[in-house]
Amino acid sequence: MGARADKSTDELAIRSLLEHWASAVRAKDYPAILAHHAPALRMFDVPPPIESRGLEEYRRTWDLFFSTSEHPVVFDFDDLEITAGSDVAFAAARMHCEPTENGRRGRLDFRLTVGLRKSAGQWLITHEHHSIPAGS
Amino acid sequence: MGARADKSTDELAIRSLLEHWASAVRAKDYPAILAHHAPALRMFDVPPPIESRGLEEYRRTWDLFFSTSEHPVVFDFDDLEITAGSDVAFAAARMHCEPTENGRRGRLDFRLTVGLRKSAGQWLITHEHHSIPAGS
Repeated sequence: MGARADKSTDELAIRSLLEHWASAVRAKDYPAILAHHAPALRMFDVPPPIESRGLEEYRRTWDLFFSTSEHPVVFDFDDLEITAGSDVAFAAARMHCEPTENGRRGRLDFRLTVGLRKSAGQWLITHEHHSIPAGS
Repeated sequence: MGARADKSTDELAIRSLLEHWASAVRAKDYPAILAHHAPALRMFDVPPPIESRGLEEYRRTWDLFFSTSEHPVVFDFDDLEITAGSDVAFAAARMHCEPTENGRRGRLDFRLTVGLRKSAGQWLITHEHHSIPAGS
């Protein structure tokens, strides 16, 4: 019962963390976007480069995102599945945003996987993988 | 020390599982490819569809892969980082394969994230995310 309650608590904590992160993206609030990321974070993003490492490179992936995402920014979960252990967890989700390309705003469905580690009682994102299927 | 040894054992077990999986792909050995996957596996693959669920849909993603990957099949890790807890783990990697497109075989670099859960003492893959950056 104790372990089950803990697990549920961890899942809820991670769900809240990810919902706050998505909300921070919609608000273009950089400190809040980066608030729960590990310094050595490894990021696989939708556009190139093939990978980014560390908070400074991670921050730049958001500069690129905001350069094509106009107000009001859309960055929404369509579903979110969390698998949480006591100190390691991952989440898989379908999301969508609304980039503007060639002057036209449109919906873009993408996939997200997040890896987390608990450090000093707090969940931290150490890995993100955002993508769309090739050729879309 | 005990926890540290366990963690190292888990990381080694997952590294071995993933290396055997990649080796099974190179051998086109379907039973070995699917040997350590959970029935409710969720897969985000390089080509469409946007997601596949369950072993039958997962198997079909390999039919598609082998339809463009000729003998000898290349499916190799360039690096592999594993984050293992006691019952949940994830791995992030750079890999490459050699698909044949328009009669021409070429190297394709891609990213892989894998989510795992320990069940009855055995690690099982419950999530895979393969992708290339958009526009590549």
